[in-house]
Amino acid sequence: MNVHEVASRAKAASFKAAALTDDLKNSALLRVAELLEAHRAEVLSANGADLAQAREDQIGDVLLKRLALDEQKIAGIIESLHHVAELPNPVGRTKLRRELDQGLVLEQITTPIGVIGVIFESRPDALVQISSLCLKTGNAVVLKGGSEARSTNEALHRLIERGLADTHPDFAGCVQLLGSREEVRALLALDDQIDLIIPRGSNALVKQIKQNTRIPVLGHADGICHLYVDREADLKMARALTFDAKCQYPAVCNAVETLLVHRDIALDFLGGLAPVLFDVELRGDRRVAELIDVRPATEEDWRTEYNDLVLSIKVVDSLAEAIEHINTFGSHHTDSIVTADESTARAFMAGVDSSSVMWNCSTRFADGFRYGLGAEVGISTNKIHARGPVGLEGLTSYQYRVIGHGHVVADYATSKRHLTHRDLKPAG
Amino acid sequence: MNVHEVASRAKAASFKAAALTDDLKNSALLRVAELLEAHRAEVLSANGADLAQAREDQIGDVLLKRLALDEQKIAGIIESLHHVAELPNPVGRTKLRRELDQGLVLEQITTPIGVIGVIFESRPDALVQISSLCLKTGNAVVLKGGSEARSTNEALHRLIERGLADTHPDFAGCVQLLGSREEVRALLALDDQIDLIIPRGSNALVKQIKQNTRIPVLGHADGICHLYVDREADLKMARALTFDAKCQYPAVCNAVETLLVHRDIALDFLGGLAPVLFDVELRGDRRVAELIDVRPATEEDWRTEYNDLVLSIKVVDSLAEAIEHINTFGSHHTDSIVTADESTARAFMAGVDSSSVMWNCSTRFADGFRYGLGAEVGISTNKIHARGPVGLEGLTSYQYRVIGHGHVVADYATSKRHLTHRDLKPAG
Repeated sequence: MNVHEVASRAKAASFKAAALTDDLKNSALLRVAELLEAHRAEVLSANGADLAQAREDQIGDVLLKRLALDEQKIAGIIESLHHVAELPNPVGRTKLRRELDQGLVLEQITTPIGVIGVIFESRPDALVQISSLCLKTGNAVVLKGGSEARSTNEALHRLIERGLADTHPDFAGCVQLLGSREEVRALLALDDQIDLIIPRGSNALVKQIKQNTRIPVLGHADGICHLYVDREADLKMARALTFDAKCQYPAVCNAVETLLVHRDIALDFLGGLAPVLFDVELRGDRRVAELIDVRPATEEDWRTEYNDLVLSIKVVDSLAEAIEHINTFGSHHTDSIVTADESTARAFMAGVDSSSVMWNCSTRFADGFRYGLGAEVGISTNKIHARGPVGLEGLTSYQYRVIGHGHVVADYATSKRHLTHRDLKPAG
Repeated sequence: MNVHEVASRAKAASFKAAALTDDLKNSALLRVAELLEAHRAEVLSANGADLAQAREDQIGDVLLKRLALDEQKIAGIIESLHHVAELPNPVGRTKLRRELDQGLVLEQITTPIGVIGVIFESRPDALVQISSLCLKTGNAVVLKGGSEARSTNEALHRLIERGLADTHPDFAGCVQLLGSREEVRALLALDDQIDLIIPRGSNALVKQIKQNTRIPVLGHADGICHLYVDREADLKMARALTFDAKCQYPAVCNAVETLLVHRDIALDFLGGLAPVLFDVELRGDRRVAELIDVRPATEEDWRTEYNDLVLSIKVVDSLAEAIEHINTFGSHHTDSIVTADESTARAFMAGVDSSSVMWNCSTRFADGFRYGLGAEVGISTNKIHARGPVGLEGLTSYQYRVIGHGHVVADYATSKRHLTHRDLKPAG
């Protein structure tokens, strides 16, 4: 099958998937978990073949690490399948019930979106994770993985297909994997059949996808997060937050890349910072360089997501300058202020145009699990549909249902009858 | 200014607009209403010039009617400005408050989206209506009207600008009108600066816009709505609903275009239908033609939004065939079933992939005002962001705010502390 045929099959499957009960979907997820448990050796052997090929192709260490599966990672995948099965049913929920008139009721019911296109690199665990979230929400999914993980992806996909087939014939076509020869570009052109694209991979991948499709993309390219240390900051707290936001896990999108420091406390704060960040490479503007020993930062630094133990630092004259800098150079992901002054904090949170803004805590909290969303589909920097850490809700839409007893609009247009608009308690 | 400069100015203005209070925004709306009241003559004279030019250009009657303003239409615009000012504040609302841990609180707050691009044809009243909705939600707006309404649009825009300037300097740049020479295409290319496009005009315009931009488009191209008369239908009710859905206002998107009739009641139902629809042109498939006098319908009819007193009719063998027909040929807008059988009705509503589905009532109810949404931004057939009739909520996004007391992620990664995820009552 070519990409177009796969997408058509997924579209047809999505209608059947939408009608499946939560019980059936959970059974399917648990069956996949069982199969994965039983066929660990098969998956690890496929992964071994990919790893051997990758080493032959002299693929870098970081990529190799992402590609490699082991018993622990597989146990993690199995655990996450159980977790997704335990989440409350995200579709068929009544968001709103309203009496429009006597005997005429409006309902707003959550539904699947349809077909989700998932493009991912390296990490084969992403295949199972995102498929399980799409299944739980009654969506069909078309997966396109990186060629370096081909054998692993195929092995995992076979187990998913088998788990679905074991559970119910209506799952047929719900999870399809494109072969490695098909182009991402062809998938991105199918805006009639794919309703949403979820990219999992490097910033470059996400950027390239966003620039080459009219399909909505749920995700973010960069995570250029800031910590602003206000002149009213508790400097000890500010240093601890800087350390956590930079060093606790520097490779992730919600780690901080740029520190903005108010001039009034710059000397005090920065003077005590270097020992805390002893293994971090510090880059600073001219005013920072006058205070502590740093490499010079250029404008390019303000636009860079290091994903590493590097931190750029800038001294600012005011809250307004900090906000302006963040809105200009940031990626609208997550930014935090450290201050004891509530009105300054409120002005910062209202003024910074980012999906998450924080006060006196680490940017590292921006995460679907930490926010209590149950599962994380991704972190979105869009303002349309879903923003910030996105849970299963991001994979759902809704439908209005109106139930009457022969009601016609003419009666209201001629004022024979009048709409009541009385909100009712949602039924389910 | 060229399109790019206008959009940059709008982006800058959107940050200031987001910080304006609801009181100030309402004052601005009421000030615009006052100015419109005081300068009716000026607006009508500009409209007279556009109409004279349009007649000279031999523009059709339908377009002329849309273009023409009169005292009554202006009174309607003024009333709608008052109505929008009275709506509850759509931004700054707390959607969710959750304790993540002691002293660490997550809030989800509604915010404006940013910059809305509005492309409209003919109707100059749309300019004021959509601008008022964007203002109420704290968004900046870039308007591009049809060249045939140029003078009217400029007159209305001058009054809006003046009303905003009279109220507060921070409204500067919030509502901008592109000159008629600038191309729609240039606006559609600015996906870095325009966050959402709202088209107001013909199906052809909407289609063209959707096909030429990566900016999300809120709206719908076609309104190919269906009424399915089930074999368990009350036939008298079915005829009354057909009449209302087709004839009450045939030019609108939620009017019905195709009638699907179950074979078991086709003769009875259709036999009594012709007298009810005496001034409607009926087109039917072969099986319909065997029962009543109709013009032949081709597949093209199933794909056509007549927007006129024309109705295509098809006999189907089953509920499944009706659903399949609607999902294949419909436009995912609004479809209704007439039946006395609840399980048939539920299966229809769950199976039809449309933004509104109905049971025993007219498709004409699909409307933001009738649904009690307060105002209607448009009707969306997308499944992403907003679906169906869209109120002010469709012009808002949200932001997560996390407020702590020095909380770091390391404490949770090392199990020194644990997340509580306790939902709190929203504060505002």
